[in-house]
Amino acid sequence: TGSINGSYRAEFEKFRRGLVTEFLSWQSRIVREYLRPEQFITHNFDFAWRGYSYGVQPAVDHKKASACLDIAGCDIYHPTQSRLTGKEIAFGGDLTRGLKAGGQAQASTGGQSLSDGTQALGFNGQNYLVLETEAQGHINWTPYDGQLRLHAFSHVASGASAVMYWHWHSIHNSFETYWKGLLSHDLQPNRAYREAKTIGADFARLSPTLTGLRKQNQTALLVSNEALTGMAQFPLPSGFPFGAPRTDYNDIVRLYYDALYEQNLECDILFPEDITRLSEYKLLVVPALYSAPDTTLAAISAFVEQGGHLITTFRSGFSDENLTVRHTEQPAGLNACCGIRYDEFTEPADVALRSDVFEVAAADREASLFMELVDARGATVLAHYEHPFWGSYAAVTENHFGSGMATYVACLTTPAYTRAIVQRAADAAGLWGAEQKAAFPLVIRYAVSAGGAPLHFYFNYSGEPARQAYLHGAGRELLAERPVAQGEILDLEPWGFAVIAEE
Amino acid sequence: TGSINGSYRAEFEKFRRGLVTEFLSWQSRIVREYLRPEQFITHNFDFAWRGYSYGVQPAVDHKKASACLDIAGCDIYHPTQSRLTGKEIAFGGDLTRGLKAGGQAQASTGGQSLSDGTQALGFNGQNYLVLETEAQGHINWTPYDGQLRLHAFSHVASGASAVMYWHWHSIHNSFETYWKGLLSHDLQPNRAYREAKTIGADFARLSPTLTGLRKQNQTALLVSNEALTGMAQFPLPSGFPFGAPRTDYNDIVRLYYDALYEQNLECDILFPEDITRLSEYKLLVVPALYSAPDTTLAAISAFVEQGGHLITTFRSGFSDENLTVRHTEQPAGLNACCGIRYDEFTEPADVALRSDVFEVAAADREASLFMELVDARGATVLAHYEHPFWGSYAAVTENHFGSGMATYVACLTTPAYTRAIVQRAADAAGLWGAEQKAAFPLVIRYAVSAGGAPLHFYFNYSGEPARQAYLHGAGRELLAERPVAQGEILDLEPWGFAVIAEE
Amino acid sequence: TGSINGSYRAEFEKFRRGLVTEFLSWQSRIVREYLRPEQFITHNFDFAWRGYSYGVQPAVDHKKASACLDIAGCDIYHPTQSRLTGKEIAFGGDLTRGLKAGGQAQASTGGQSLSDGTQALGFNGQNYLVLETEAQGHINWTPYDGQLRLHAFSHVASGASAVMYWHWHSIHNSFETYWKGLLSHDLQPNRAYREAKTIGADFARLSPTLTGLRKQNQTALLVSNEALTGMAQFPLPSGFPFGAPRTDYNDIVRLYYDALYEQNLECDILFPEDITRLSEYKLLVVPALYSAPDTTLAAISAFVEQGGHLITTFRSGFSDENLTVRHTEQPAGLNACCGIRYDEFTEPADVALRSDVFEVAAADREASLFMELVDARGATVLAHYEHPFWGSYAAVTENHFGSGMATYVACLTTPAYTRAIVQRAADAAGLWGAEQKAAFPLVIRYAVSAGGAPLHFYFNYSGEPARQAYLHGAGRELLAERPVAQGEILDLEPWGFAVIAEE
Repeated sequence: TGSINGSYRAEFEKFRRGLVTEFLSWQSRIVREYLRPEQFITHNFDFAWRGYSYGVQPAVDHKKASACLDIAGCDIYHPTQSRLTGKEIAFGGDLTRGLKAGGQAQASTGGQSLSDGTQALGFNGQNYLVLETEAQGHINWTPYDGQLRLHAFSHVASGASAVMYWHWHSIHNSFETYWKGLLSHDLQPNRAYREAKTIGADFARLSPTLTGLRKQNQTALLVSNEALTGMAQFPLPSGFPFGAPRTDYNDIVRLYYDALYEQNLECDILFPEDITRLSEYKLLVVPALYSAPDTTLAAISAFVEQGGHLITTFRSGFSDENLTVRHTEQPAGLNACCGIRYDEFTEPADVALRSDVFEVAAADREASLFMELVDARGATVLAHYEHPFWGSYAAVTENHFGSGMATYVACLTTPAYTRAIVQRAADAAGLWGAEQKAAFPLVIRYAVSAGGAPLHFYFNYSGEPARQAYLHGAGRELLAERPVAQGEILDLEPWGFAVIAEE
Repeated sequence: TGSINGSYRAEFEKFRRGLVTEFLSWQSRIVREYLRPEQFITHNFDFAWRGYSYGVQPAVDHKKASACLDIAGCDIYHPTQSRLTGKEIAFGGDLTRGLKAGGQAQASTGGQSLSDGTQALGFNGQNYLVLETEAQGHINWTPYDGQLRLHAFSHVASGASAVMYWHWHSIHNSFETYWKGLLSHDLQPNRAYREAKTIGADFARLSPTLTGLRKQNQTALLVSNEALTGMAQFPLPSGFPFGAPRTDYNDIVRLYYDALYEQNLECDILFPEDITRLSEYKLLVVPALYSAPDTTLAAISAFVEQGGHLITTFRSGFSDENLTVRHTEQPAGLNACCGIRYDEFTEPADVALRSDVFEVAAADREASLFMELVDARGATVLAHYEHPFWGSYAAVTENHFGSGMATYVACLTTPAYTRAIVQRAADAAGLWGAEQKAAFPLVIRYAVSAGGAPLHFYFNYSGEPARQAYLHGAGRELLAERPVAQGEILDLEPWGFAVIAEE
Repeated sequence: TGSINGSYRAEFEKFRRGLVTEFLSWQSRIVREYLRPEQFITHNFDFAWRGYSYGVQPAVDHKKASACLDIAGCDIYHPTQSRLTGKEIAFGGDLTRGLKAGGQAQASTGGQSLSDGTQALGFNGQNYLVLETEAQGHINWTPYDGQLRLHAFSHVASGASAVMYWHWHSIHNSFETYWKGLLSHDLQPNRAYREAKTIGADFARLSPTLTGLRKQNQTALLVSNEALTGMAQFPLPSGFPFGAPRTDYNDIVRLYYDALYEQNLECDILFPEDITRLSEYKLLVVPALYSAPDTTLAAISAFVEQGGHLITTFRSGFSDENLTVRHTEQPAGLNACCGIRYDEFTEPADVALRSDVFEVAAADREASLFMELVDARGATVLAHYEHPFWGSYAAVTENHFGSGMATYVACLTTPAYTRAIVQRAADAAGLWGAEQKAAFPLVIRYAVSAGGAPLHFYFNYSGEPARQAYLHGAGRELLAERPVAQGEILDLEPWGFAVIAEE
């Protein structure tokens, strides 16, 4: 892997990911020879690790590697205490839920459809197993009261049909001594164990309702291992493979994912193999798709032309699947649907965004990392750069194309600015309502039970008590076992939650 | 040494320290065959290095390795100019002084007692040689006027019977060119040389009084190479051997040592081999004794039961001598005498200490690095954590056990808070008086001359002049050669000092 | 190169530089066998790289290696946008211009004098080729409007007879993808390309005047590969080869070069081989000449004795050509002409300079990195250290010696303080006038055309418009093709400039 040729190194990374896919597929075939009807094959995928489960896994192509499984599985670890947000639980779940989704697509690529074993358990193609998650976690993650319960039901709300802990008791020797289990080293009942017992009791009682959930999201986020690797080889802002990048592909993915999450815009996470399913969605978010074949870019453009709403960003379309920079006008393949062009870019220094459209506090208007100097030929400029020399170039544009609309973001925006951009596009796509206004730390998640009942999860990701009106049809709160009327105020404890099944 | 198995690596470190002990012992036996009666064997031990002599040496077990010597020796280097505190001189001296102390213990372990040569020189078992210390030091340490004299007499006050410099003249080539000797590169008489000449003249005159001093401390600090290595393998706050630890064992040792030093509570530094001598002391400080056999913990507990005062901290007792975390209630082996238990811990984030007992400025109440969530079953809580979720747990406790008392500190406290904790325990042990109130930068040290005269050293570790009442019996100041009455005000120059022999 | 013996390593570095010289010389001899009369040999030297062309190249002795060339060449890269200063263009040019200068010296060392080919092109010994410089540069260096033109004419003002770009179009693959050429990846005419076309048109029109310029500077700056390597082996402030030095030789060279540049004191950069030419100059600046033979120090001293003005600094003269620290009084070889001595030094901590001579804002009076404790025996003290213990030592001194004057700077001063020191010495040397007062960002450069016409370049290195009186004899502005009277106000655009030929 030691080469200054980034294109070559990215190809080698793809080759290595292919070895993982081949190996798992070979293992799966061997196991499958001996599989009893009630048994199934899963695998414990993990995520890009940044001290916790952060983003798309660079070393494995989860989509391709999961073709040989009956049901997807993953491990998810994340901060707790006052830094608990639920973002990693949701991101990991939204990604893993999609690995076996799209049965038709699965079949066409030779993938494995649901085994008898998983069907017997009531799982559908969207369900997955949390094969590992933190109990007491490591030293920084000793959970506050209620957080273990919040974790568990948040996994369920994403479609998980099981939650398993690492691990039963804390280890007394060698290495993971301080990655503590449900029991501490003294093996006595303790605070975490007592809280876990309540989770087990609730799961035992509610499994008929909570197992085999289906999600019906209208927003999708497209991620790509090729874009990830490409950005890693030509990292921003320098474009040279020296030093650690300040902001990598996963940071940009998470910037947009988190902007969705914080506004209760639930999404499915798609891989390039899912490009045939774009018509299922109203809003498509495509962050920094630095490397992609013509077909992918054409499918995204067609999605817009046929009425979809697209948000895409700087770097999308720039190079092809071999990391060769395209010779054509940028953003290549997306210039027509976005209605723009550029051939210059730089790192912003003291650059803010100036806009008549977005109402964002001055401190949140900074452009950072990278800015394309966009000529908004046909598009409407939503924000310009505020700078003595770059002021004439566009930073954010919007373009009607066919019966759809494309939003282009030419620089790295702040989280608050990104939320404003996402809000505007979601509104145009008809996805902005009361749930979205009830923003983080109030997290609302939606699923349909195997029995067909709409389920609404209201999570309070905060150390303060929360009051929130119940926004949906009359139902029954499953934990307290009491009726809830539409508009009724839900009182949520710190790190508390409610699960209401419509009746 | 490349293993993620911390227990295994700690054992290997112990094995390597054993090789040093064996090698020195073998060398000593060879030399001893040829030793003339007036000759003796010493060795130049150095300390954990952090740009200067900082703490317990991790690569050598000084206690075990010194068994083959006639007299202990060391080199001590430290900052000067406005960062000169005398702490390293005192720490290195207090540690080295104890290496050959406890004659009975020495004999029982096959150690070498005082040779004829050292006896002829008037040394007792506590004396040691400073075989190297800085002259002009390196570029940052060019001493101010008077500092070389202050260094020299501070070594003497700890029990040193010789002070030798690195080195005669500065080197003109190769490597240690900027570790300057008494002479600069031009080999001419200079400022440092002229000051050193006065030291030599004073030593020549005062040696009958200053050689072979005896110390009679009532406070002891217990250190351990096994605890040091254990903490290094499972470093705080993460417990994982990745990255440099923010705070290591020696930092915690020095936090407590410095709290003693800054309050003129002179101490002897003990190793686990000295555990049989605990009854000689009134106050025992045991910081972070992460790894220890049952016998050591039992001896500490018995010390309290029999009337001793103990201060111990987080991590003490946690694992045994093989770095296996104990399966029993924590702090294992000390839970009874401390009257507490815990099974959870975390890294404090925005956690302060709340206390009705300790009067410490708000800025100095922070808990950092690591906090055990202590259940003070039988103990008196001296300080709680100030935090929305951890507020019910104890941070500092005090417990009467037998006829003694044990103070437990469950988190890393600030220097000011640590001083307050130490003060309270020292007061309870009957060790708090006028000398302690005359705190750093006024440093008072005590010794008894070979002739039996009490000697009082008053050091002004400051660039400002100091005035301090002489607190002891009428005597004679040895440098100025003039009588001093009790209560008389001593005028000390910047970096100046007085040495008074009671008459 | 792995040795703690810094003297040995420096010798090895010198050996490696010698290999480069030998290799280029051998290559040159081969090529020269086939050279046609109109052809010539050049080479693309680059500079010490700190993200841009920063200082003296440590791996090549440019002076020695250029002996085999017909004309010197270099590549120069530097920040643009609001960080564009022209300093690297000027430094690289002033250094490269001197590589083939001093024909007599060249001949005496077996060097190559101007070939027929270069003479045919109208070049004199001072001219050089900019064989590479940035077009759009990398991501941070996308130029503002006008900056490419400013770069090009700044190279010309230093004596460059050609400016070539890296490179024609941006690369689509592999490595230097983001080191962009005149064309972007889409290969279409763009902003940079259009500006470059105007440069080409102006060069085509003005080449008869701008090719083969001669410079006549009265100030020289002496640099040395041996001093550079020596300082790298014994880096400040520690003197030990551990960690990256905070401030290296090139930082000190650039501190003084920039102080000259910012005050429009144009200089020639000399190497030790040029020591025979000192009498051509009125003011000689010798920063940190840590390693030098007796002959070099004697020549510098003689320059002063014979009426020259010298500025030299801490570390000069300290060691000989073998990096052996001199046994004699410091600054060795310069103590007599500077009228001072010292044998101690340290790193300043909270040390400022106190002076009745230099009027510098309080914030700019800090001494940093390293300070020699100078005893100003015969010299006038211009600044003392402001410090409780070092206050009696001199920081900056001035000494009349023979018919000249020597200024000694014993510590690292701030840029503002350094400018004040340089101003005072330049004033004493009769070099301080209206051009010098018109300081940076207004940069005035002077040359004589091949036809003998004085040429004055007025560069506005600023994003703000500038107004500056034309200070020289009536002439003709070459770009606008209009007459300019002495005293007439020149209106310069942001990053704009004027070139006036006296008539």
